[in-house]
Amino acid sequence: MRAVVWDGQLRVDPSYPQPVPPPGEALIRVSLAGICNTDLELMKGYQGFRGVLGHEFVGVVEDSPVPALVGQRVVGEINAYCGICDTCRSGLLTHCPHATTLGISGRDGAFAEYVSLPARLLHVVDNSIPDRAAVFVEPLAAAVEILEQVSVRPSDRVVVLGDGKLGLLVSQVLSLTGCDLVVVGRHEDKLAILSRRGIAVALEEQSADLDRADIVVDCVGRPEGFALARRLLRCGGTLVLKSTYHGQAEVDLTSLVVDEITLVGSRCGPFGPALRMLAMGLVEVEPLIDAVYAIDEGVQAFERAAERGSLKVLLRPG
Amino acid sequence: MRAVVWDGQLRVDPSYPQPVPPPGEALIRVSLAGICNTDLELMKGYQGFRGVLGHEFVGVVEDSPVPALVGQRVVGEINAYCGICDTCRSGLLTHCPHATTLGISGRDGAFAEYVSLPARLLHVVDNSIPDRAAVFVEPLAAAVEILEQVSVRPSDRVVVLGDGKLGLLVSQVLSLTGCDLVVVGRHEDKLAILSRRGIAVALEEQSADLDRADIVVDCVGRPEGFALARRLLRCGGTLVLKSTYHGQAEVDLTSLVVDEITLVGSRCGPFGPALRMLAMGLVEVEPLIDAVYAIDEGVQAFERAAERGSLKVLLRPG
Repeated sequence: MRAVVWDGQLRVDPSYPQPVPPPGEALIRVSLAGICNTDLELMKGYQGFRGVLGHEFVGVVEDSPVPALVGQRVVGEINAYCGICDTCRSGLLTHCPHATTLGISGRDGAFAEYVSLPARLLHVVDNSIPDRAAVFVEPLAAAVEILEQVSVRPSDRVVVLGDGKLGLLVSQVLSLTGCDLVVVGRHEDKLAILSRRGIAVALEEQSADLDRADIVVDCVGRPEGFALARRLLRCGGTLVLKSTYHGQAEVDLTSLVVDEITLVGSRCGPFGPALRMLAMGLVEVEPLIDAVYAIDEGVQAFERAAERGSLKVLLRPG
Repeated sequence: MRAVVWDGQLRVDPSYPQPVPPPGEALIRVSLAGICNTDLELMKGYQGFRGVLGHEFVGVVEDSPVPALVGQRVVGEINAYCGICDTCRSGLLTHCPHATTLGISGRDGAFAEYVSLPARLLHVVDNSIPDRAAVFVEPLAAAVEILEQVSVRPSDRVVVLGDGKLGLLVSQVLSLTGCDLVVVGRHEDKLAILSRRGIAVALEEQSADLDRADIVVDCVGRPEGFALARRLLRCGGTLVLKSTYHGQAEVDLTSLVVDEITLVGSRCGPFGPALRMLAMGLVEVEPLIDAVYAIDEGVQAFERAAERGSLKVLLRPG
């Protein structure tokens, strides 16, 4: 099958072996897949991954140990947990130390004609959600994860930092709480996607004038985001970290103590609420699509995704 | 009056001007005061403070705008907030940007015969609490602050890192929740204070064997504490920061995201619960007293407090 492979360099392999699902796993024909910033970070050395990239997808089940899934349109959670260790039994399934992670760690991903995943990780997609929206379920779930971790009150002043793909999803999800939200970014065209929905926005150079926020969410994706987030956060406030990148940051831990800041690291989230939000039309993802490439043009698709200012680049394997 | 003054070097001034309380403030004759690690950090440049040091004290009110306080034995909160700004009105009194802080920022402290503080910051000390215990109310309140910020469940596995003064207070307070607590330190004699109370302890070199904790409290007081705390914390866990020191730390923010860690900076706490815990005998502070010095020996007292392994050094101004 055709697949986009990272083995120190990026290439489209026209005859990569089709996955043979082990017991408990389903075989899915991929309809559409999305390139995430994490894919770009993997190519900089993050996690040391080698193999087929891709962890955002929608597809149709061709074979499954759960017969009811065959022929269904599905999306899939990315952390293939063991289900039997202490971490799993305590409910922290996305943190299972024995897990493989789709296209990120120990498991081939979805930038291919076929992908194999444990059947228990699959979620059937409602007919009301087109493929072009369903492919956003994984990153939308990561945005929803913030509300699993932090209680955002309707009266809270909230700042989302970053108008990239994740920032635009996080902003829309947080706006649903009715909170006093401002999204700070660098791109007028991206911020306009939000302001058209009635969400307040500001360019980064105007952010010094903003009142300090109760909650700041860093979706900048670079170490500089942390310092800006701290400047915009009130004492006693909560800083949610969504950015993952290769490398360390210099942090004034003492100032976190003195200002009694709560820092919340936030990663993968629940698919159920993300699917419901899309089905209800509460979150709009169509304007986030930058381009769709055939899988044969996988390398060009990655080049486009890595360009400054690009939004979601999709791959169509079929 | 006699006072211990820091002005780039530490000295006992035999004729420092006695404070003249401005409107709203009370004049307190100091009975006993305690040296805190923060005092030692101030002498390394932290906050750039100059003046009379000292923010842990118990004394007797000699003059007060609230007549009922005159003649009472009191302890005092250290953050003299304005009470009228937005931060104060939102209830974040200890974070008032206009505040002075006793012996730490903009206000002479309690290592002197007399100290002046707003009357509203004073708490009358119950007769059941001797001066040698009452002088611990301020740091004990800082330990209690953790429970104001984090819900510690009886079934939680908790590690306190650090067997210094603050670590010993934090450990005793957290043990009251019934949680599964282990205190990790470097000094067998200090850990013995806790194990005599039935609290589980471990030396730092044994800590690699410990099961990962749901909550880790860093009371180490040095940048190294953070890395050790991270190693002992489970994914999805909470790391409480109590350490303040002069300087920055290198932090892997991405690992906080991937492991979904919550970091909680924690500083000054409520005096009421601290006084109740001492009155009920729930926390034992007498074994934490290392030595008591007359104020004339203030410089020697600081030398003793700075020695590795010393516990609480008290100053008696009278």
